[in-house]
Amino acid sequence: MQGLAIILSGPSGVGKSTIVRQAGAQLKNWCFSVSCTTRAPRPGEVDGRDYHFYTKERFEQDIAAGSFLEWAEVHGNYYGTLRHPVQETIQTGGLMILDIDVQGARQIRAAIADSPTEPSFVTVFIAPPSLAELERRLRGRQTETEESIQKRLKNARTELAAMGEYEFCVVNDKLEQAAEDFLAIVKAARCRTALLHTNPLL
Amino acid sequence: MQGLAIILSGPSGVGKSTIVRQAGAQLKNWCFSVSCTTRAPRPGEVDGRDYHFYTKERFEQDIAAGSFLEWAEVHGNYYGTLRHPVQETIQTGGLMILDIDVQGARQIRAAIADSPTEPSFVTVFIAPPSLAELERRLRGRQTETEESIQKRLKNARTELAAMGEYEFCVVNDKLEQAAEDFLAIVKAARCRTALLHTNPLL
Repeated sequence: MQGLAIILSGPSGVGKSTIVRQAGAQLKNWCFSVSCTTRAPRPGEVDGRDYHFYTKERFEQDIAAGSFLEWAEVHGNYYGTLRHPVQETIQTGGLMILDIDVQGARQIRAAIADSPTEPSFVTVFIAPPSLAELERRLRGRQTETEESIQKRLKNARTELAAMGEYEFCVVNDKLEQAAEDFLAIVKAARCRTALLHTNPLL
Repeated sequence: MQGLAIILSGPSGVGKSTIVRQAGAQLKNWCFSVSCTTRAPRPGEVDGRDYHFYTKERFEQDIAAGSFLEWAEVHGNYYGTLRHPVQETIQTGGLMILDIDVQGARQIRAAIADSPTEPSFVTVFIAPPSLAELERRLRGRQTETEESIQKRLKNARTELAAMGEYEFCVVNDKLEQAAEDFLAIVKAARCRTALLHTNPLL
């Protein structure tokens, strides 16, 4: 059976990684996608775990070779997701979760459209119950400057406007419920007929 | 939020109603669709619970009026599913489970294609792990004649050939797992973005 790639998007602070951690305790054989970047490692970051740290030359070679499922340049640094590990996960029946922004998700949708692996990709948007609640959570962190909060809220509005492009939406009102919904989406995706090669007739 | 209509198909003896009963214990606000028929009630059958018992005239009037989502004539009797209760369930946010054969499911797919309620319909095929296992289960009932078993197995082959027309397939190998898969499909369907009217931006 083909594996799954879950494309997860949602505004900063909405609780994506908390939901995945909670749901992941009940999932087998899964991993997070590790992005590539040309920015310098920060203290404590490990190559291959937090990011694949690439030189600019290597990144641009891989862009030219079509190795990225999606990539972007942000503040002079490249960020991207390699195609190969995702394909390998799908071929070996595994489950990969990709934390991708709205622009990246659009690139992935375009890259896989009408491909044999398309049914293996599931797009999930995590939404806050309201913008006011998202603001409350961002302020609750007490690590953000006012400028940073305003910037995150502005980005959140842009991301939320793209919610309709996703197949599923999980509203993170209560964490337990949101994790349960996310888990159901993964389990249901495994039952997609398009992923099965087990028709008892065959 | 729009409700859901789950179209459930699968060969006779595969365990559809057992799976629904098991999963249903964890679902709220759901019901089975009650079919209409022109055949005579059998002892113990209650009108409106087991079937809506119709006269031939009334059934044919309703066919002409387009009241059925799907219908068929079998051995001189009509059987059909009314459109109205399904629409009402969807509009009021409920969940209706419809046990429908492969032909009926095709009619429903055609009837709802590109309609605003299309995302509310979820098609699920329940498959046995193998035809040999289905035969073993049918024989295990010890209530079937050899002729009836052969007929059911022939029908099963026809139904299984249509599995690819369904969005989801649940293989009923172990009941607990099959019920859990079915439950996940229902829960995930509730998270379909197309059913939500709750974008925090709106």
